[in-house]
Amino acid sequence: MPYILIQITKENVTTAQKQQLIQEATDLVVRVLHKDPATTFVVIDEVDTDNWGVAGESVSTIRNRQRIGK
Amino acid sequence: MPYILIQITKENVTTAQKQQLIQEATDLVVRVLHKDPATTFVVIDEVDTDNWGVAGESVSTIRNRQRIGK
Amino acid sequence: MPYILIQITKENVTTAQKQQLIQEATDLVVRVLHKDPATTFVVIDEVDTDNWGVAGESVSTIRNRQRIGK
Amino acid sequence: MPYILIQITKENVTTAQKQQLIQEATDLVVRVLHKDPATTFVVIDEVDTDNWGVAGESVSTIRNRQRIGK
Amino acid sequence: MPYILIQITKENVTTAQKQQLIQEATDLVVRVLHKDPATTFVVIDEVDTDNWGVAGESVSTIRNRQRIGK
Amino acid sequence: MPYILIQITKENVTTAQKQQLIQEATDLVVRVLHKDPATTFVVIDEVDTDNWGVAGESVSTIRNRQRIGK
Repeated sequence: MPYILIQITKENVTTAQKQQLIQEATDLVVRVLHKDPATTFVVIDEVDTDNWGVAGESVSTIRNRQRIGK
Repeated sequence: MPYILIQITKENVTTAQKQQLIQEATDLVVRVLHKDPATTFVVIDEVDTDNWGVAGESVSTIRNRQRIGK
Repeated sequence: MPYILIQITKENVTTAQKQQLIQEATDLVVRVLHKDPATTFVVIDEVDTDNWGVAGESVSTIRNRQRIGK
Repeated sequence: MPYILIQITKENVTTAQKQQLIQEATDLVVRVLHKDPATTFVVIDEVDTDNWGVAGESVSTIRNRQRIGK
Repeated sequence: MPYILIQITKENVTTAQKQQLIQEATDLVVRVLHKDPATTFVVIDEVDTDNWGVAGESVSTIRNRQRIGK
Repeated sequence: MPYILIQITKENVTTAQKQQLIQEATDLVVRVLHKDPATTFVVIDEVDTDNWGVAGESVSTIRNRQRIGK
């Protein structure tokens, strides 16, 4: 009965990528822990880049610097 | 001081339904655990059907099949 | 396909109380949102009173003051 | 390697306020627990006022009453 | 910068299984979303079977019935 | 009405450190967002080092290598 939360920044994740995450994350707990896929949940939470911080900065700030740096 | 998270798919949940969830979930921990309602939080998290997977498939995929199957 | 998290302080919650929380929280989303109980999860997370803060104080500190105040 | 979730109601939080929350929450775990800021995440989750309940009522309901009461 | 939470019942999960979950869940977001593994967190949360409910019953109750049924 | 979750590895965090985290995290949302401390929750979740992964490895594995490397 696993519950898997995949929290990521909202940066153009496609429906196909989401389907792959759901399928493979489910497969992972079925394979490794012998869980029943019928009661395995995968929730993908996409977070605005303004709302995610790493090393004390928002991902928006980090992405802006990366763009300028190119 | 309970914190209750109700995570569901975003499928036309009405304001009245949300109010009922908040009221009854609060009442549940007050009744069963004698908690103070003043410090009981209920958070409803509505998740896009593309972002919720069950049995290795997104709820969007499952809903599409259910519609066709009718 | 709801996922319900009930986070509370670890203060002698009995098995019977946990069963009642699980049963009634499941019933709540079945009744209000017409969800399938078979794919409704309820997770109870019991948190040490040292690890839960309200109003800037740990619940341990609050409970100690309440005991002395009696 | 801390993960800090700051869940608040969605009520006109500015980008500057979000940056301050990210910076100071990161600084807090670096200062108190000597954690590495490079692997410290801060996630701000803004919740619609219809979806957050306190004392059995939604924050929307509470805010409406506060507005009328003024 | 993904954060992956794998919440499962506490039922004799080995250190080797945990390592495999961490390695493969990290690999999944690196492969599908091109994320940096250095800032990918995986947290495994093991929940007591008394504290996890499915279909209105605790997993403890379900496991007891399964044992008797054998 | 903020809810702040501070998730860290379980590595000898003292009661005094927990109290400081609770006090300063509460103060942060009061100062920056003008929230009411009476309805501000801080939950500290200490995770076993076997159950936390970074860069595809458990923190236990990383700590062992750091000890040998000294």
